Amino acid sequence: MKTLFFDGSLSVREVEKPRPTPGEALIEVIYAGICGTDRQILQGYSGFHGIPGHEFVGRVVECDDASGGEWRDKRVVGEINIACGQCDWCRRGLGRHCAHRSVMGIINRPGCFAEYLTLPVANLHEVPPEVPDEAAVFTEPLAAAAEILEQMPIAPATRIAVLGSGRLGLLVAQVLRDGGGEVTVLGRGGPKLDLAKSWGLQTVTISSGAHEIPSQAHESPEAGTISARLPAKSFSVVVEATGSPAGLDEALRLVEPRGTVVMKSTFHGDAHFDTAKLVVDEITLLGSRCGNFSVALKLLRQGRVKVEEMVSRVFPLAAGVDAFKYLSEPSCLKVLLAPGIYTRPLIAS
Amino acid sequence: MKTLFFDGSLSVREVEKPRPTPGEALIEVIYAGICGTDRQILQGYSGFHGIPGHEFVGRVVECDDASGGEWRDKRVVGEINIACGQCDWCRRGLGRHCAHRSVMGIINRPGCFAEYLTLPVANLHEVPPEVPDEAAVFTEPLAAAAEILEQMPIAPATRIAVLGSGRLGLLVAQVLRDGGGEVTVLGRGGPKLDLAKSWGLQTVTISSGAHEIPSQAHESPEAGTISARLPAKSFSVVVEATGSPAGLDEALRLVEPRGTVVMKSTFHGDAHFDTAKLVVDEITLLGSRCGNFSVALKLLRQGRVKVEEMVSRVFPLAAGVDAFKYLSEPSCLKVLLAPGIYTRPLIAS
Repeated sequence: MKTLFFDGSLSVREVEKPRPTPGEALIEVIYAGICGTDRQILQGYSGFHGIPGHEFVGRVVECDDASGGEWRDKRVVGEINIACGQCDWCRRGLGRHCAHRSVMGIINRPGCFAEYLTLPVANLHEVPPEVPDEAAVFTEPLAAAAEILEQMPIAPATRIAVLGSGRLGLLVAQVLRDGGGEVTVLGRGGPKLDLAKSWGLQTVTISSGAHEIPSQAHESPEAGTISARLPAKSFSVVVEATGSPAGLDEALRLVEPRGTVVMKSTFHGDAHFDTAKLVVDEITLLGSRCGNFSVALKLLRQGRVKVEEMVSRVFPLAAGVDAFKYLSEPSCLKVLLAPGIYTRPLIAS
Repeated sequence: MKTLFFDGSLSVREVEKPRPTPGEALIEVIYAGICGTDRQILQGYSGFHGIPGHEFVGRVVECDDASGGEWRDKRVVGEINIACGQCDWCRRGLGRHCAHRSVMGIINRPGCFAEYLTLPVANLHEVPPEVPDEAAVFTEPLAAAAEILEQMPIAPATRIAVLGSGRLGLLVAQVLRDGGGEVTVLGRGGPKLDLAKSWGLQTVTISSGAHEIPSQAHESPEAGTISARLPAKSFSVVVEATGSPAGLDEALRLVEPRGTVVMKSTFHGDAHFDTAKLVVDEITLLGSRCGNFSVALKLLRQGRVKVEEMVSRVFPLAAGVDAFKYLSEPSCLKVLLAPGIYTRPLIAS
């Protein structure tokens, strides 16, 4: 089968089609999404070599009756952590922290940038019929965004800043607004921030670390745009979703005493920060990663978040190397890979 | 009056005795404690120049009737944040986060390394008669230790590591054990760790980042000593109280997924850490500073924490420069300054 393969450099490679072991299903990939973590993997993050990719929607094409024959032909998404099922974490329903886990496309397990993949049926979730493929492929990152609400309570009308108007930032902003927060998205301007604005989110354009007055501000002061430079310590919660260590400094500047900075991005390398600020202002820095797929599928089924508008372009798997390059376009949000077997019309190209 | 004064270097200096403004009391200092933050100030932390010091017990010698005549002659300790009383934080009872505050001996306000100081009577707490001067002087750091319990719930028998067996570490360890935690103190060994052990706390000797088997382990395996190298991810809560940026790395190593690292020490300069670890393991990093004096005085009155044994030496104010030097002795815990007017016998000298 055709795959994207990383062994220090990224290339399209033919490998043998995987065979499901007992308890596993073989899944044909419909769409796979490229995420910031995949780019970090190409920079050396987690030391992964193999088939990357952990966001997908697919269809089960093989699953023997002992493993769960009822899954055959079902349209599915899949949890990315393959846990041992035996340890304390697994027993507490938190297999995504199992110390013995492998992680699809990240740690010791082939990912979904391929025509087929195998996964334990325990990891599968059926996609409700109301959710199209182009939305279902967002289940994994949307679950990660919703994880914040599982980790911390958000009181109604909590002032929240989301730093970064990329893929993750736009999902986080929508989820936290849906959860009752008063959300402002801070981004570099352009189509991504415009998209946030079109969803009715407050937006602020930032540039080189400073907050600028958006050009439209004088034309439509009601358009959900804060036109002043954002003062320090002005948000109860700041979500760092820029994917860059520099975002942490700005997050710490914007958060008020006793507030929380949520760190959503993984990046390869260390961050530096002023611990005195953290201690004196009694800030909470909260690391947040994978979340609950059921929550994400519910949000998608009920249409409570917009995701399909975030698809910038769909590439065939054979053009996967170009797809990664395309991610660097400033206006690019989500890039999907569609393994060649599918001949659906591309959303944009 | 005699003071210790810092203007880039530390010296004994005569300055004019302060006069209380309306609402303030004049307090004669009985004891003042030297804290890690004071040493950081001598390294440039907070840019403070003037009389340092923020831990004291004293006696009110002047307070006019309009300001609160009932305070005269009372033995007192004093909150270190002088808040505006008007802002949101002050109204929420969190004046210690007031943006307009001054902080005794740290920001824009003379400290207590002096014969006298003034403070608003709103900052004063009367010391109960059961609490001797040598214990009362620990109220401020003990309140800071107890602040952790105000910020986060500790479930019974939560596995807690306290990194650092210095002044703050030993207070934190006692407070968290009193709050129901199962506490292990990690320190460099020697008299400080022995003191923790004598209080029945679990202790582990660490050296150059590795955890060594304490020499006594084979003699008294029941003596509250864990003799094995501590594995990674083995504590739900790790309190960083080493006063050094390197402590953060070890704290992040020891904490389990979804656990909390509490940062108690302020130091001058940045820390760096692996944000991926924070995100992937969903760690909470909690900055924690000043606490509630009433809570600390209650702990002291009820004898629930041991503090007087932590006094290593008492210096007259005139020998304050030597007192700071003495802090570098490996076995030194708390050093007190006793302004010359008091001629009580020294605890140790």
